[in-house]
Amino acid sequence: MKRSALSKLGEFGLIKQIENICRKGSRDILLHIGDDAAAVRTGSKTTLLCSDMLTEGVHFELKTATFRQLGHKILAVNLSDIFAMGGRPKFFLLNIAIPAKCSAGNIKDIYRGIRALADRHGVSVVGGDTTSSKGGLVLSGTLVGDADRAISRKGARPGDGIFIAGTPGDSAIGLELLRQGKGNKVKGTWKKYLTRRHLMPEPMPLTRRKDVTSMIDISDGLLADLCHICDESGVGAVIHKDRIPLSGELVNASAALKKDPYEYALKGGEDFILLFTSSAKSRKGAMRIGEITKKGRYIIDAAGRKKMFRAEGYEHFK
Amino acid sequence: MKRSALSKLGEFGLIKQIENICRKGSRDILLHIGDDAAAVRTGSKTTLLCSDMLTEGVHFELKTATFRQLGHKILAVNLSDIFAMGGRPKFFLLNIAIPAKCSAGNIKDIYRGIRALADRHGVSVVGGDTTSSKGGLVLSGTLVGDADRAISRKGARPGDGIFIAGTPGDSAIGLELLRQGKGNKVKGTWKKYLTRRHLMPEPMPLTRRKDVTSMIDISDGLLADLCHICDESGVGAVIHKDRIPLSGELVNASAALKKDPYEYALKGGEDFILLFTSSAKSRKGAMRIGEITKKGRYIIDAAGRKKMFRAEGYEHFK
Repeated sequence: MKRSALSKLGEFGLIKQIENICRKGSRDILLHIGDDAAAVRTGSKTTLLCSDMLTEGVHFELKTATFRQLGHKILAVNLSDIFAMGGRPKFFLLNIAIPAKCSAGNIKDIYRGIRALADRHGVSVVGGDTTSSKGGLVLSGTLVGDADRAISRKGARPGDGIFIAGTPGDSAIGLELLRQGKGNKVKGTWKKYLTRRHLMPEPMPLTRRKDVTSMIDISDGLLADLCHICDESGVGAVIHKDRIPLSGELVNASAALKKDPYEYALKGGEDFILLFTSSAKSRKGAMRIGEITKKGRYIIDAAGRKKMFRAEGYEHFK
Repeated sequence: MKRSALSKLGEFGLIKQIENICRKGSRDILLHIGDDAAAVRTGSKTTLLCSDMLTEGVHFELKTATFRQLGHKILAVNLSDIFAMGGRPKFFLLNIAIPAKCSAGNIKDIYRGIRALADRHGVSVVGGDTTSSKGGLVLSGTLVGDADRAISRKGARPGDGIFIAGTPGDSAIGLELLRQGKGNKVKGTWKKYLTRRHLMPEPMPLTRRKDVTSMIDISDGLLADLCHICDESGVGAVIHKDRIPLSGELVNASAALKKDPYEYALKGGEDFILLFTSSAKSRKGAMRIGEITKKGRYIIDAAGRKKMFRAEGYEHFK
């Protein structure tokens, strides 16, 4: 039944319907969806290009995520990358490999999820490819943005503060709640908040970037991503465990699951919040959790105990 | 065994090795692979963006294609789109969903195949995402290019000639030879030539484009793609069957398979050669196969019989 709808519509019928969802009148679009390539104007001298993939059974399950949420998320993970470079997102392309079990309505819902988030960030969906899949659903997104100055992972200097713009670990425990189906045992609005942090992350840009020396979005986990900054910048870091901002929801849900909230906050991943270094003493809307040093990677707990840390978090194929 | 190699290396180890294959010193790359996004300079005012996907079991089988060939092809299908817009290809991003059966060496071969073709066209591989796949191997490529003038599908005018820059149908019969395993029954160098046309298409740009009014690359099939031009330009077309250039290999292989070579040439698809309309009477390196008219879509055979045609070719989900 579901399959027949898509097979009646066919590839070209589906593309037409997708065009209707995505059409939007940005003046920078010279040629929109429906040609061999989109033609766009990029305003600045530095163009940012990033590309991310979500695969069924690895990044999501159709039992626990809606198609709109998947659309939201494939754009969100790419937005997060552009924000991590200090850039403005502009044009999005989506490739989808669609298994027989998905209907045309499912695919349109993916695009509706993308469109809703895209509109909030001034992003135009300008192209992509729809193909059939013999395996699961695969979403592959590419986001083009621009920047006056691209902020890389390379610029951290000893003495810089290490800042985090959000509460890490929420997404990881949200995923665990989804997987365990423990939503009902965890009372209150925690479940909704935490699972939403996993299913529909809301990356936000830093508005003031002048003093930012390096930046990354937390996707692999706080420690793993801080290690990326240290590796690329050739520096060390000291962070203070008790300065890491934990959401009340994470603390309560961890207690209910009898887990250590810092396991999620330090190693969880998929937070899509910004981790950056800055020459400023403090930053509005971000927490200073430590300092960049010449070498070594240490975490100091509330009792003053100092421990080395290494990149721990999610890594594919391991 | 194969799996263990990739699991030992891990995602970050694999990315490092991919970086080594892809690093290249184009001056337009401000930040290469290894950050959240690549930062590049696009020289011209019009930036072209295209994105295409190849999925195992739909576009390729690992029994008949090597990993290097897959790397070649995922870039080739995107190159073809940029050439179809009259553009210059510049930056490539590849997302791969990798199943457990693939080794790190397989993935590096994909990148080697990309790199070899990329070098010939001045393309830099600047990023992408590697993830695991619970289904088959999926390659999703995005190519960024630029153009002084983007040539769309919209500009064909009555009186324009219809030109084709290559011999269509070779890829489709090459695929059939691969599927039937009939390579040995078809003698001579045909098999090699025809299967190569399918596995390793070599898109080429038009060097002179001033008189070109519309353009598309043949991916769905000659008739289907000509219909795309007619639809978008709001015009009709008449083509002459006996002016369609057939390769000797296609003619001979069709005879051996007892098939009509025009079935492949008109409906085959995946040719990745250019179909365009032009105000010029003739064009070097391309065959004039017909004329744009006000309306109607007709094909005239050698005996002068006129038949209507419609978009016939490969369409996903149908």
